[in-house]
Amino acid sequence: MARPRRVKAFVSQLRVRFGHVDPAGIAYFPKIYDYIHEAFEELWHEHVGVRYDHLLLERQIGFPLVHSEVDFKRPLHFGDRPVVRVTCLSLGTSSLKLHYVYTVDDEVAVDARMTTVCVDLKPLKSRPIPDEYRAKFEEILEHP
Amino acid sequence: MARPRRVKAFVSQLRVRFGHVDPAGIAYFPKIYDYIHEAFEELWHEHVGVRYDHLLLERQIGFPLVHSEVDFKRPLHFGDRPVVRVTCLSLGTSSLKLHYVYTVDDEVAVDARMTTVCVDLKPLKSRPIPDEYRAKFEEILEHP
Amino acid sequence: MARPRRVKAFVSQLRVRFGHVDPAGIAYFPKIYDYIHEAFEELWHEHVGVRYDHLLLERQIGFPLVHSEVDFKRPLHFGDRPVVRVTCLSLGTSSLKLHYVYTVDDEVAVDARMTTVCVDLKPLKSRPIPDEYRAKFEEILEHP
Amino acid sequence: MARPRRVKAFVSQLRVRFGHVDPAGIAYFPKIYDYIHEAFEELWHEHVGVRYDHLLLERQIGFPLVHSEVDFKRPLHFGDRPVVRVTCLSLGTSSLKLHYVYTVDDEVAVDARMTTVCVDLKPLKSRPIPDEYRAKFEEILEHP
Repeated sequence: MARPRRVKAFVSQLRVRFGHVDPAGIAYFPKIYDYIHEAFEELWHEHVGVRYDHLLLERQIGFPLVHSEVDFKRPLHFGDRPVVRVTCLSLGTSSLKLHYVYTVDDEVAVDARMTTVCVDLKPLKSRPIPDEYRAKFEEILEHP
Repeated sequence: MARPRRVKAFVSQLRVRFGHVDPAGIAYFPKIYDYIHEAFEELWHEHVGVRYDHLLLERQIGFPLVHSEVDFKRPLHFGDRPVVRVTCLSLGTSSLKLHYVYTVDDEVAVDARMTTVCVDLKPLKSRPIPDEYRAKFEEILEHP
Repeated sequence: MARPRRVKAFVSQLRVRFGHVDPAGIAYFPKIYDYIHEAFEELWHEHVGVRYDHLLLERQIGFPLVHSEVDFKRPLHFGDRPVVRVTCLSLGTSSLKLHYVYTVDDEVAVDARMTTVCVDLKPLKSRPIPDEYRAKFEEILEHP
Repeated sequence: MARPRRVKAFVSQLRVRFGHVDPAGIAYFPKIYDYIHEAFEELWHEHVGVRYDHLLLERQIGFPLVHSEVDFKRPLHFGDRPVVRVTCLSLGTSSLKLHYVYTVDDEVAVDARMTTVCVDLKPLKSRPIPDEYRAKFEEILEHP
């Protein structure tokens, strides 16, 4: 019997800091979208191998968000050290849908699906995801 | 023939400030979730008639986010003055799903559906939405 | 005997929102510098008569901060509605030193002196403050 | 002849991210105060040996800011990796004045002197800096 396929993912960790937390002692929800963008930047740097600032400033390519769906399953507290696991849900010609799952002590806190579109920045118009990047997102596809 | 029913909504306006905007000159997307929370706070103050800080600090009631779905249809630029229109998509015993539509020059920029749950803060557990607040959300129901 | 001269000032009001406040229930201090920038943007729009985005994007003039000195005299709490009073401490050829005093119930919460320099943005170099703006800052000089 | 004494410092590094940067491509100045607070939190964790969230939540001790003086000597750009060096300028019974110097390529970008006061959080009143922490700040005194 075949072993279930283990999906490759990009994994990182963050710290819920003082300035992220609201009067109720939990991460202010807009801050969580900021965490998601930070994970996206790290994914580019660490997994794809391109500094995110180089992607934008030198290659003049961006990935604006067009759709997001996020489930907040438990709050993140001041001092928590969530682990985020990023995989790819779908990969079109230009569109890139990533899946971010944040866990604390193996319990899911946030499950986010974020759809972005690859664009040239000048002028701003959609373009195919360059092949060398596509290969890196294929590596972390959930259902290849 | 009946005139189509006009849905009552809470309407407010904001300014896309310098500090909200990214190097591409458009609102950094996590900032848009901050706009949504600000509209939620204003809705409480201006439409429901309760200061949001009084709701939390005195009545010890909160509305944490459990699910969000957001479409980003066009970017918001530095200096834009978007109008937000807030209506209620559904109203359960404890759950409250609000609809935020941001327009610039009558063009939709952001369409967000945000599901929150009414909770007592101490101890943290879900509770029915108090009747006096429920009546106010019924007024802005899209499909009464 | 002469009546003491009353200094003209630009006055505005803000709200300490949920997302500004830390777990101790008071405004997270970096947020206060954000308030100061918002007051600066409003000063341009309401007092000088130029939209701050037009100043930067159309006139290509900016006022980067070069020095700040801030006293934090009492905390700002969630729900507070501080009033800010902005005056001009000194006005050089290129440099502009503004004084921001935030009060709650007539008690000073924050006293900030912020020195900026007028620059052309492209290329980035200091330039004299244009005369039409200078006249507006002279109006709010503390010691003309 | 005596070698000049080399001051011990706490050193850390950060990344100027996309969401930190304004339309001019440089770090929005209020974000720099956020960097300073993050360096303060890391100083506690890495140098003093106490997690900052434990200090506040368990020991119920805080260090609110009472005075800041900051020089902005050159802008921080998107993608920069500034190094921050933290030393102690003075250490009173309750007051703690820290010196943060941010450099990029050995050029000073930001030089900040931040005075905080040690307080008990409940009820909020100043208190002596506990001896075990004091010893750690003495280690990084600029002029012992």
